[in-house]
Amino acid sequence: MPVASTWSRERLREALRLYLVTDQPSLKGRTLTDVVQAAVKGGVTCVQLREKHANSRDFYAQAVALMDLLAPLNIPLIINDRLDIALACGAQGVHLGQSDLPVLAARKLLPPGVFIGWSVETPEDVALSATLQLDYLGVSPVFATPTKTDTATPWGLDGLRRVRALTPLPLVAIGGIQLANATQVLQAGADSLAVVSAICSADDPCAAAQQLRKLIDAH
Amino acid sequence: MPVASTWSRERLREALRLYLVTDQPSLKGRTLTDVVQAAVKGGVTCVQLREKHANSRDFYAQAVALMDLLAPLNIPLIINDRLDIALACGAQGVHLGQSDLPVLAARKLLPPGVFIGWSVETPEDVALSATLQLDYLGVSPVFATPTKTDTATPWGLDGLRRVRALTPLPLVAIGGIQLANATQVLQAGADSLAVVSAICSADDPCAAAQQLRKLIDAH
Repeated sequence: MPVASTWSRERLREALRLYLVTDQPSLKGRTLTDVVQAAVKGGVTCVQLREKHANSRDFYAQAVALMDLLAPLNIPLIINDRLDIALACGAQGVHLGQSDLPVLAARKLLPPGVFIGWSVETPEDVALSATLQLDYLGVSPVFATPTKTDTATPWGLDGLRRVRALTPLPLVAIGGIQLANATQVLQAGADSLAVVSAICSADDPCAAAQQLRKLIDAH
Repeated sequence: MPVASTWSRERLREALRLYLVTDQPSLKGRTLTDVVQAAVKGGVTCVQLREKHANSRDFYAQAVALMDLLAPLNIPLIINDRLDIALACGAQGVHLGQSDLPVLAARKLLPPGVFIGWSVETPEDVALSATLQLDYLGVSPVFATPTKTDTATPWGLDGLRRVRALTPLPLVAIGGIQLANATQVLQAGADSLAVVSAICSADDPCAAAQQLRKLIDAH
């Protein structure tokens, strides 16, 4: 197995349990930091900043603002795609998709303390993941989702079980996860529930996070 | 003066003389590497890869392809905006605009051998540049230009002369530069002519570069 970050799988599994992915259009006019603050209060254990349309300066400013909020709470910030933003703000993790920098190139640029997650969309991606220096896999999407329209065919619960059987890496399930299906997703082998709209668009992001966290803790 | 890269101003001035900025939509169906190869044959002395719409994987692939082409010729590759791409491909320079990462954050992430250029759009930017760890300034735009529509008010030749009087940094003039106005731009104090469409859209990019280079060498 190639060398990943210095994060142990135990520590990472613990840190990833309830994984918030940010989405500006879902915020319903509230600020990103307000929603993240509420979500964290409700029990979110890590936050991925995803900014597909912001320019670099705004992305960086958001990243710094979230670091200021999360670092004192020991909640890891994960940056989607942009290693330069991750390095500049001192984020603990990076999430890479299939159209982002290759993992091999990314690993060379990051300090050993920064973990890398990678989205797997097909069984071939899962097979390839065994040869890469990865810390966790994002199983994407588990269910169809309106917040990300460029996604591959959903894995479904059966697909998630198949991925679980193929890898020892922590699995972050993402795509269409809500209170109603969360327990099934955990039972299918996910170590972590990643949510976007279930928290970002909730009228009460704190309460939404609390309810999801309760299910995770009970599992 | 804050510490910039290890590039001396003399060496950088020499390297920047004829500065090609890439623009995919201007290539008229030709590949980027074909146009850059022809431009370099015609006398381009450095190349900036600017990719405002490509995803990270494609941007990285283009950067690696250009590095393979340019490194054996000792022609610096400069990456626009994306420090992670620059670091991953081993580019010699980075160009930052007003909506990119702050210079201070960028300088911390780059090895000392990588130079930083910064676009100045107003007299205030020029004043600020004296406090930053910069290697050159891009005077942007000198003239109005169709290839970049988000630009500020053009400096004009008088504006370029004012910038020249305010800074000892090498000046890269960009925006609407063509054979017909190139000599005036050099006379107004530019150390370097940066062109996009004058080469990328030329029927013969090699000949277009040769003609511009001839004017620069004669200056």
